[in-house]
Amino acid sequence: MSISLLADIGGTNTRFVLANNNCDVLFDSYEAFRNTSAESPELLIKRYMKRQGIDSCDHVVLALAAPVNEEEVVLTNHNWRFTVKSISAASMSNDVLFINDLEALGYGLSELGAEQLQHLAGPRSLDKKGPRIVIGAGTGFNAAIVTQLENGEHFVKAMEAGHMTLTVETQDEFELWQYLAKGRGRASVERAISGRGIEQTYQWFCQRNSTPVVHMNARDISIAASNQSDLMAEKTMQTIANIFARTIGDLVLAFLPTGGIFLSGSVTRAMMPWLRRASFFDAFVAKGRQYDLMHQFPLYILNDDQAALHGCKIAAKQHSLRLRGM
Amino acid sequence: MSISLLADIGGTNTRFVLANNNCDVLFDSYEAFRNTSAESPELLIKRYMKRQGIDSCDHVVLALAAPVNEEEVVLTNHNWRFTVKSISAASMSNDVLFINDLEALGYGLSELGAEQLQHLAGPRSLDKKGPRIVIGAGTGFNAAIVTQLENGEHFVKAMEAGHMTLTVETQDEFELWQYLAKGRGRASVERAISGRGIEQTYQWFCQRNSTPVVHMNARDISIAASNQSDLMAEKTMQTIANIFARTIGDLVLAFLPTGGIFLSGSVTRAMMPWLRRASFFDAFVAKGRQYDLMHQFPLYILNDDQAALHGCKIAAKQHSLRLRGM
Repeated sequence: MSISLLADIGGTNTRFVLANNNCDVLFDSYEAFRNTSAESPELLIKRYMKRQGIDSCDHVVLALAAPVNEEEVVLTNHNWRFTVKSISAASMSNDVLFINDLEALGYGLSELGAEQLQHLAGPRSLDKKGPRIVIGAGTGFNAAIVTQLENGEHFVKAMEAGHMTLTVETQDEFELWQYLAKGRGRASVERAISGRGIEQTYQWFCQRNSTPVVHMNARDISIAASNQSDLMAEKTMQTIANIFARTIGDLVLAFLPTGGIFLSGSVTRAMMPWLRRASFFDAFVAKGRQYDLMHQFPLYILNDDQAALHGCKIAAKQHSLRLRGM
Repeated sequence: MSISLLADIGGTNTRFVLANNNCDVLFDSYEAFRNTSAESPELLIKRYMKRQGIDSCDHVVLALAAPVNEEEVVLTNHNWRFTVKSISAASMSNDVLFINDLEALGYGLSELGAEQLQHLAGPRSLDKKGPRIVIGAGTGFNAAIVTQLENGEHFVKAMEAGHMTLTVETQDEFELWQYLAKGRGRASVERAISGRGIEQTYQWFCQRNSTPVVHMNARDISIAASNQSDLMAEKTMQTIANIFARTIGDLVLAFLPTGGIFLSGSVTRAMMPWLRRASFFDAFVAKGRQYDLMHQFPLYILNDDQAALHGCKIAAKQHSLRLRGM
């Protein structure tokens, strides 16, 4: 039996699972580790393989929170560097594939069941052949586009949407934009829609209202806003939710994803109470003459820690079919 | 011999050409008419067919400056309304295909020779398999994405990029944004990057500088700016060119078009002297950490009145192969 090792290496945790030659995930093989528990991903892979009682793998697919087009991968939020060669040596595999984590989520979409998806707004029926976008808002911001080809395969491509220009629509937002742009000359989307963006926006609200900064991280700010225990935190979450809605709307006009918009990431989860408000959908559809068009796109929340692993499996399958010329 | 009638129906002119069953354009069949010379597109088609000595066509492909997903097409800038049925009756053809004019340009890209493309900036070599975007800036603003499939066919899709939020980076630009947003609550990309956008931006510069409005239309404004005969016109063209560069840059981050960016339309042509300045490319690549990435995309000007007709031909070919199940 051939064995595939699938891993999702995030900024904080690494998740593993094994799959057989039919690309069925092996029951009970799922394990998650803190990245800080190992000195390198190579050592973490060896540890996992030992625990699973395997010496080598036929295929390895790693979903990475990093650009994967360079020879050496430098993880975006953890001090790990590695190459296809070093992972190949650690896993005793000749077939190692790196994919971007948002691309993995994109591949995983087709296998998600109703319990892993939460309908947020727009039509409930998905145009299964229509293009989809998966948006990740967490440490950073990005989007991947998923197109279904005529042979049923999915073509998935991550963009650099987090680096697009941050938009503003009010004088207050423009002042926030200037604060976020300080020392850089510009503010990109992920300067606002990210964990760090929430923290900086909160600091900006505290500063202009001469209020002490009580909360230091995005998680505490979102909790204080939910509890209504800190007005500056509430203003922060409302402002970021509004910018998030507008930004998603702009990406919808760029990609026309009739197959749906799938929101993921820790910032998406922290913003859930705000995403459910009518004001969020109002800001999303506020595209002038395209107001009606904007109602045609289903918005979903992607609730699954293992979605990227499912995506690795599908990417591995497509990759190996392609290698075999099928 | 089977005959295809190809037409590009713009807001002002309609261009025709015939093609044979191999989709080769018939020499000498090209003709262009002012839309005002006929009461309806049906009558114009009949007139053209009569002049060419044909009674019926096997295929008809129309490239339209209008959304084509509705049953009835309403031309964006000319008072013509028509349907597949009415065009079918006029042309005596059972196979009528409507495509968006930017999609037609997208299909046409693959057939353009060096003389129809003018290199503007970025690498000169095109990644022929990479995705391309064609951007039209004229009466309105839009973009289409062109992806080459594994079978060599092109998949082309027009977006609604003109309705995305107009970005700003300075207090002056935000004040212009507010002027353009007046009565609407928001300003979209095409409120600035269009003929009307040039006119309104010029009026805004005149108003804030207490200078009389000398020029009424975009063409005159661009000529006065080129001549350096009107400082407000110069400021206008420089501002719009800067916004154009930034907007193209944002679309590049959304689509990563390694196959190239192709600029077309009357506003693109009017802005040529500004597009050639170093400040244009500087604004295009000013994407923070993505500065190096931004140098990897070739920028071209598309110089061909007949490019959309070439695109109709290719669309017709793909369409008929698909109908025949090939």
